[in-house]
Amino acid sequence: MSRVRVHNFSVSLDGYGTGEGQSLDTPFGHAGGRLTEWFFGTRTFRAMQGKDGGATGADDALAGTWGDGIGAEIMGRNKFGPQRGPWEDHEWTGWWGPNPPFHTPVFVLTHHPRPSVEMEGGTTFHFLDATPQEALRRAREAAGGLDVRIGGGPSTIRQFLAADLIDHLHLVIVPIVLGRGERLWDDGLEGLEDRFEVESVTTPSGVTHLTFTRP
Amino acid sequence: MSRVRVHNFSVSLDGYGTGEGQSLDTPFGHAGGRLTEWFFGTRTFRAMQGKDGGATGADDALAGTWGDGIGAEIMGRNKFGPQRGPWEDHEWTGWWGPNPPFHTPVFVLTHHPRPSVEMEGGTTFHFLDATPQEALRRAREAAGGLDVRIGGGPSTIRQFLAADLIDHLHLVIVPIVLGRGERLWDDGLEGLEDRFEVESVTTPSGVTHLTFTRP
Repeated sequence: MSRVRVHNFSVSLDGYGTGEGQSLDTPFGHAGGRLTEWFFGTRTFRAMQGKDGGATGADDALAGTWGDGIGAEIMGRNKFGPQRGPWEDHEWTGWWGPNPPFHTPVFVLTHHPRPSVEMEGGTTFHFLDATPQEALRRAREAAGGLDVRIGGGPSTIRQFLAADLIDHLHLVIVPIVLGRGERLWDDGLEGLEDRFEVESVTTPSGVTHLTFTRP
Repeated sequence: MSRVRVHNFSVSLDGYGTGEGQSLDTPFGHAGGRLTEWFFGTRTFRAMQGKDGGATGADDALAGTWGDGIGAEIMGRNKFGPQRGPWEDHEWTGWWGPNPPFHTPVFVLTHHPRPSVEMEGGTTFHFLDATPQEALRRAREAAGGLDVRIGGGPSTIRQFLAADLIDHLHLVIVPIVLGRGERLWDDGLEGLEDRFEVESVTTPSGVTHLTFTRP
């Protein structure tokens, strides 16, 4: 059975999955690189950038499961880019350069659809104005029996969690207080833990990995 | 130098230090015992209730440091009891029975002062309408050179943190989503980690202990 998974989703102690003030130079707003610092040094992250080397400890082991058996991703528009409202042009094709690390179809949720974009390496961006349920149906078709990853940002993950569409959630708590930005824990998630088996582990980098797995 | 310390302060993943709907039967509102379950089985908690036995693992080791070298506590009124507004009578003397586990002067912050209450075992409740700074000055006098503990609840701890009056914060993250109640992380704590050395450890009970220590 195809599962729906979230991986490597980092939040601050106060629950922000991204900071305030996203721009072209600051995909995470005022959070900068602080939410993902634990991830930058890992072999998994370096491989996503086409680089060799990197740490192979517990952070990497946990991060490295993000791609196994994934056939499609769904992401919110703000993960795709900093523009808001109608697309001014179709030049923007994401933060990831010509060969994005996804290598599968990627469905970008937006109220402003535009033509699909085929990138190098197997990533194709499709743009959908759809409910979580409808987007998931489309992504599952495209995934050919493999799992679907929900890639973020915070409000996209929250919507899929609130609709009880997530089977596996890997959350990383970073011990910083961001104070502002976009919160994962806004509404509709009370009692989330009742639907999952929950495991926690702190790694030497100081972050705590939580996995919520549907029994 | 006398330090100001917080111990065993539990919050949910979404940052609530207590649930909604506090009453005589539910000091933590709809959270019930879920925030403090990790603590109930420890030798430290049992000793606070005058009982023998209990677990002596990592949770207990961390919890057990709460009383060492403490000469006074400051708590918010809602930790003391469920009444709001002017005191209807002076019968209520806290949730802890005739011999509370503090065994020091305890300063209860309230806009409605009332006469001090001397309990068995060395605990005396004093009632203060004061700023955090003024309350701390009074508690330090009473502590005779020992440390002062800020006992909670969430808004009291938040106020003392925002005023940069805390030297040691022991926080326990419980992997549940409460959805409503009183949040520790409301406002004024952005960048808190810059003022402290921060350590995290997950214990077998599934909670994660964080210690923030002023260098």
